[in-house]
Amino acid sequence: DIDANRLWDSLMQMAEVGPSPNGGSRRLAMTPEDADGRRLLLDWVEALGCTWQRDKAGNLFIRRAGREDHLPPVSMGSHLDTQPLGGRFDGVLGVLAGLEVLRSLHDNAITTRRPLSLIVWTNEEGSRFAPAMGGSGVWTGRLDEATFFGASDSKGVTLGEAIAACGEAGDLALGEPELDAYFELHIEQGPVLEEQGHPLGIVTGVQGIRWYDLSLRGQSAHAGPTPMSYRRDPLLAATAMIQRMREVVMADPDGAARLTVGDFQVVEPSRNVVPGEVRLLLDLRHVSDERLDALDAELERLARDAADAEGVELTFERRWHSPVTPFDDALIDSLREAVKARELDAPCMMSGAGHDAVHLSHVTPTVMIFVPCRDGISHNEAEYAEPEHCALGTQLLCDAVLARAER
Amino acid sequence: DIDANRLWDSLMQMAEVGPSPNGGSRRLAMTPEDADGRRLLLDWVEALGCTWQRDKAGNLFIRRAGREDHLPPVSMGSHLDTQPLGGRFDGVLGVLAGLEVLRSLHDNAITTRRPLSLIVWTNEEGSRFAPAMGGSGVWTGRLDEATFFGASDSKGVTLGEAIAACGEAGDLALGEPELDAYFELHIEQGPVLEEQGHPLGIVTGVQGIRWYDLSLRGQSAHAGPTPMSYRRDPLLAATAMIQRMREVVMADPDGAARLTVGDFQVVEPSRNVVPGEVRLLLDLRHVSDERLDALDAELERLARDAADAEGVELTFERRWHSPVTPFDDALIDSLREAVKARELDAPCMMSGAGHDAVHLSHVTPTVMIFVPCRDGISHNEAEYAEPEHCALGTQLLCDAVLARAER
Ligand SMILES: NC(=O)NCCC(=O)O
Ligand SMILES: NC(=O)NCCC(=O)O
Repeated sequence: DIDANRLWDSLMQMAEVGPSPNGGSRRLAMTPEDADGRRLLLDWVEALGCTWQRDKAGNLFIRRAGREDHLPPVSMGSHLDTQPLGGRFDGVLGVLAGLEVLRSLHDNAITTRRPLSLIVWTNEEGSRFAPAMGGSGVWTGRLDEATFFGASDSKGVTLGEAIAACGEAGDLALGEPELDAYFELHIEQGPVLEEQGHPLGIVTGVQGIRWYDLSLRGQSAHAGPTPMSYRRDPLLAATAMIQRMREVVMADPDGAARLTVGDFQVVEPSRNVVPGEVRLLLDLRHVSDERLDALDAELERLARDAADAEGVELTFERRWHSPVTPFDDALIDSLREAVKARELDAPCMMSGAGHDAVHLSHVTPTVMIFVPCRDGISHNEAEYAEPEHCALGTQLLCDAVLARAER
Repeated sequence: DIDANRLWDSLMQMAEVGPSPNGGSRRLAMTPEDADGRRLLLDWVEALGCTWQRDKAGNLFIRRAGREDHLPPVSMGSHLDTQPLGGRFDGVLGVLAGLEVLRSLHDNAITTRRPLSLIVWTNEEGSRFAPAMGGSGVWTGRLDEATFFGASDSKGVTLGEAIAACGEAGDLALGEPELDAYFELHIEQGPVLEEQGHPLGIVTGVQGIRWYDLSLRGQSAHAGPTPMSYRRDPLLAATAMIQRMREVVMADPDGAARLTVGDFQVVEPSRNVVPGEVRLLLDLRHVSDERLDALDAELERLARDAADAEGVELTFERRWHSPVTPFDDALIDSLREAVKARELDAPCMMSGAGHDAVHLSHVTPTVMIFVPCRDGISHNEAEYAEPEHCALGTQLLCDAVLARAER
């Protein structure tokens, strides 16, 4: 069995690398803090005799030898990067649960038939560099290298430059090594498990995600002498569009549509100037591809209508699309069995968040495990998961990985 | 008569001090560019034998001796600071028209009975430091010193610090010297004169202005797994409030209400995070104090309603209030006569923009002259006034100032 206290201690130690003002973490992708977090993990796994390699995207592959070491490894993984004001569990739990599995095997001097691999994916959050799940995307070939390496942050630094500056590039080829299966443990980041009183969830897939970059350009003008009727105000157009799109989302027949305006920026703002340009970053999601496509069309229509009504120019850019992704049935069944063997109870559920597992599912059998998080809150410094839930999820991961590695 | 070409050349030379990307100017208050603009003006007036002094707010008083030099000077003035992407005329025209008056007198070896004064007020725009019209406000005692010197820019630098860093503080006492009258020439910054085909306007007063700082705080959450009904999204509350307030403003019985949201900022933005906090800077205006008060109450009500509906916290701060301001009847009449003497035509009108003349009108007889600007566009790099209109306005200023100075 895994060591719940050791797991918790490691989580709390990692949280101290790039601490955020109110008790969370701030390790934006490929910053010095992100590199420090990786270094701390490597110190821990080197102490277990594991080896490691990196690819040029900075994805980190930690390896524990197996009895039949030529076989493709059974892999676990997640990410160590966080949101600007991020929590201590999102991504980190999946990585440190994998570490705890490796430590438990080491303590018990167990060598599995197949080798094991623990993977840390680069830039999962997509907060500093769009899109999210970038490292796993480029590794699986589902995101092209130009988009991945060329993505730039708000200061104009590209991800390629940031990886180089952190010294995180390696020479493992993208797509290597071939994997036998991929398991990812994560906090739910939503309210369902907690509300229903379940300590664990088996994730059957991930909802569809679409990202948009919008720019609305009117004419900057003086706030005082310019009559309302003379204005071409992109801010008023943007707020009108957001309100209408919100109504559409609230009226979703499945009650499952989600709209987030994560950024709303006035270019060269000044209180007594009618804005000349506003820029929006939007995130739209649904568990049904068909509904998501309909919402996508509606968003564009509302944006064009609002821009036309205000006489402003619109640039409507589809930045990223991740369709609804189902996970592997056999692995889902294996988790069901592992849950049963421990006399636990775990519902099957869809994930609302994107995860590296989405990309992995296209190249290897993939599944995820969820544990509840307090009030469903994530992407927030106050994010919290109970130690016992973290331990249960890690135990289930350990059981399922061991079963697979002996197969 | 004044020299139209010399005036235009000086305007174009000043525009080159802190040029902005698209042919305008960027001389934010008490930046090195602002100090450079003042230095250029001082070089010009020193060549005319004028003397100058500054007060601790950085207001600059240029003086031309009169035959009865103990009398209070007849003053002209405006500002040299600009918006972040500002035009070449807003403020600058009033100062350089005053320079042109001094130069014409110098050329013709005329000494007026009363001394003349040309004043450059600090931080008129209010873009870097709120409120606007700060230098004239603190000089007239209508803005308290703590608010003026303690106002901080978006980087936390106070205006007091910026004045010191620019070396623009002087030792003239605030409120000195006593003035005989104050004349300010300015571009209209609105569409009325151009539309009605008038080359000049006589300004009878300034509309009321109210400034607000709003903060809405909800709970940051993950854009994916967080159902819409669980969110407390301050951005949705803010956009709802703006849309409703816009309807109120558009329905104004006088058609004269003006609402500008000059900044809309998401704190720690990230596309896949429901914002935790948004901050707004608002500007609300009306030519009637009674209507402006009613709009003020309505804005607060709508903000509270929108915040409550979304379950977010609201901070509603009234940052500045400049009531409707009438100018001096006798000076308005003197302008009417000067216009008639030149066989010109100039309607009387209210100003939509605030000007230093608002504060001055409380301590000395005050009036303003407007010239049209193309398409009514101001606070925009494309701001433009015809050379002949600039010259006509300057001639009218010259005529009125000379008449007053001989009185
Ligand atoms: N798990 C997680 O926070 N992923 C970021 C990608 C997304 O926005 O869903
Ligand atoms: N003239 C001018 O642009 N003044 C700034 C103050 C205002 O916002 O009206």
